[in-house]
Order: sequence, then C-alpha cells, then structure tokens
Amino acid sequence: MRLAELSARSGVSTATIKYYLREGLLAPGRQLNATTAEYDETHLRRLRLVRALIQVGRVPVASAREVLKHVDDESLGRTIRLGAALWALPQAPDPDEEDPATAAAAAEVDRLLRTLGWDAAREIGALSPVHRSLVALVATQIRLGYPCDAETMAPYAELMRQAAARDLDRMETYESDTEMIESAVSSAVLFEPVLRALHRLAQEEESARRYGLE
Amino acid sequence: MRLAELSARSGVSTATIKYYLREGLLAPGRQLNATTAEYDETHLRRLRLVRALIQVGRVPVASAREVLKHVDDESLGRTIRLGAALWALPQAPDPDEEDPATAAAAAEVDRLLRTLGWDAAREIGALSPVHRSLVALVATQIRLGYPCDAETMAPYAELMRQAAARDLDRMETYESDTEMIESAVSSAVLFEPVLRALHRLAQEEESARRYGLE
Repeated sequence: MRLAELSARSGVSTATIKYYLREGLLAPGRQLNATTAEYDETHLRRLRLVRALIQVGRVPVASAREVLKHVDDESLGRTIRLGAALWALPQAPDPDEEDPATAAAAAEVDRLLRTLGWDAAREIGALSPVHRSLVALVATQIRLGYPCDAETMAPYAELMRQAAARDLDRMETYESDTEMIESAVSSAVLFEPVLRALHRLAQEEESARRYGLE
Repeated sequence: MRLAELSARSGVSTATIKYYLREGLLAPGRQLNATTAEYDETHLRRLRLVRALIQVGRVPVASAREVLKHVDDESLGRTIRLGAALWALPQAPDPDEEDPATAAAAAEVDRLLRTLGWDAAREIGALSPVHRSLVALVATQIRLGYPCDAETMAPYAELMRQAAARDLDRMETYESDTEMIESAVSSAVLFEPVLRALHRLAQEEESARRYGLE
C-alpha cells in the first residue's frame, strides 16, 4: 500500500508517519521510485505499536526507539529479547542506596523470592530494573512505617504469577517471536492500566458485597 | 507530644508540618497555651498518610484535602466512605464520548460485569470514575486494534477479585473505620505500584521458566 492508504488504515496522519520514519521508529517502505514507497502489513502493525508507546504510553521517542531495537533483534534468545524490550520502557526510580530502608527492603524481596521459589528472578536479581524498582517501592513503604514484608506480598505475587502465565499463553498464540514481543510491549503499556482499573473495580464490588451499597 | 517530637518521630520537618496544618491536611493539636500545642498518635498516623499522598503519590494538595475529608466523614456508610475517598484520588481520564470506540468499550465492560456477576459494580456503573476509566482504557485498545474483550479480561478480573478480597481482609484487621479507610487510601497510592512490579517480575520468572535464561 502507498503512504496515503497506510495513513487511512492506521488513523495516523501522513505527517506523523513521516516523522516516525525520520525518527527511525518505522522501517522505510520498499522504494518504488524517487517519490513513492510501498508499505505492507508489518508497517501497519508497527505503527499501531508506535502509537501505543508514544501517544498512549507517553514513552519518550528515544526510549521507544530503544524498545523497538530490542523487539527487532532476532539474535537474542526469547527471554532476553523480551526482557530487554520491556526493560527499555520507562521504569520506576531505582532504590536510594543511602537509605537504610533499602537494605531492609532488599532483604524482604529476597525472602519473598525464596518463599515463592522464583529462582530465575532471584538469579537475575538487581540486574533487572523491575527487581530494583520493587525494592525501591518496598523501601518507601518501610520508610513511611507501612507493613510490606514477604508474608504480605507473597499471596499477591502468586496471583500475579497466574496473570503472567496467562500473559505468556496469550503471547504464544502469535506466529512469530517478533509479533509475540510486540504484543508483550503493547500489553505493558496498554493492558497494565486495565488490570489496575479491574483491581479498583473489584475493590468496589467486594466492598459493596461485604458492607452493602451505602 | 510537642511539634518537635512529632517532627522527629514522623521524619517530617517542622516547617512542612506547619504547612500541612495551614493547608488543612492535618488537624490542629490541642492548644496548651498561645504558642504550644500537643499532638498525639492520630496526628502521627495522619502525617504518614499525608506524606504517602503528597510526597510519594504526588497527589495535588487540593485532591489530598478532598480525600481526607471523606476519610474523616463518619456520617457515611463504609462502602460509600471508602469509595468517596478512593474516587477523590487522581483518576485516569474519562472516556471520549465522541469516539465510536467508547460505545463498543462500554458494551464490553457491561458484558464483562454480567459474565462475572459483579452486580454492584454494574449498579454503580458510570457513577464510578473507576468504571469510566476502565471504559476509556478499553476504548483505547479497541481504537488501536488490540483485542480487549470481555473474554480476554474475565480471567484477569477474577484474579483481581481475589486480590481485592485479600485487600479488604487486611483492612478489616484495623480497629476503627477511619484507620481502615486510611489504609485503603495508602494502599491505593503505595501498594498498587508494588503489585505492578510483582506482575512484571512474575513475567520475567515465567518467561525464564518457559524459554530458559538466555
């Protein structure tokens, strides 16, 4: 398809598509002549992901480019490729190593992962920005005096493991690793807020059931 | 305790405490004489919540005041008091009623709630900003062409209902309704990010188990 059709089908203006092309967020089309290029379904799919990242997730262009670089890196194994793409998304801040609550939080997170038998997550450890941000978040709770120990977190972590298993089951229905990793990235940006809203709605439902609707 | 001790025990500077008092985020102490006031454990507890809202959650002062007004309103029933406090927190944007994806999303959310038998959530419906933001989030996915129907969401919603039941179990260990609602608010600000980090960490664990650590 030509640029005009790509724009019509994706709902993205031709000016914005040209901007994404210049910024390296979208691969160039197949050049038919000096002024015309041909685009295909992979461009349409990628454009959807770029919109999810930039327009919805408000991911900075440089981060989005980094994410897409990993999505496209077929030299990596699946776990590393998936991890690298997700790690390139904006993360919560790293823990403050000066704060004594950080050491306490790191110990709780380690105890949690042992309790759960999450050996891979323990092995990856602080290499993962996700692990580091979990430590930082637990440290904040400890510093403010709210309880957030391994026992409190464990049952929630089990529920999240069930959610993660379902995430990967869904991803495995895609034909290629690239599509699978694209879907993981779009889920991280688009589906995580849905999950949070479902959690809050579930709290309303549960509260109304227990205490009545007044 | 005097102001100096309240500051030492809470880790909040006296200048900041005075600011919170002026802004009505913290109730005045019991005035002992023209220059000295006496504070107690309820001030310490409230200060912890104000820090969670303002310093960690970056909730605007006006919203924080609104949240605390509902936390303290003993004339309300438990569900409404809880809901009002949580609804006063900053919410995701409302759906765009002009967008045709919004009607499709509202239908999917309604179908989801029917499937799940969440009758209270259906009855509250679009009165709840949580319900509205769920519709908006689903509409975004539909608009971008990602699948997000009732069948996709239902199993995640079931997991979130289990999480919500656990949330309320934890809250019910508090002695007073006020403490219970304070803890619900602090959880919404502090524990939701922990849950999100646990979900991402679970994805890493599950991915490493299925595809190996490379």
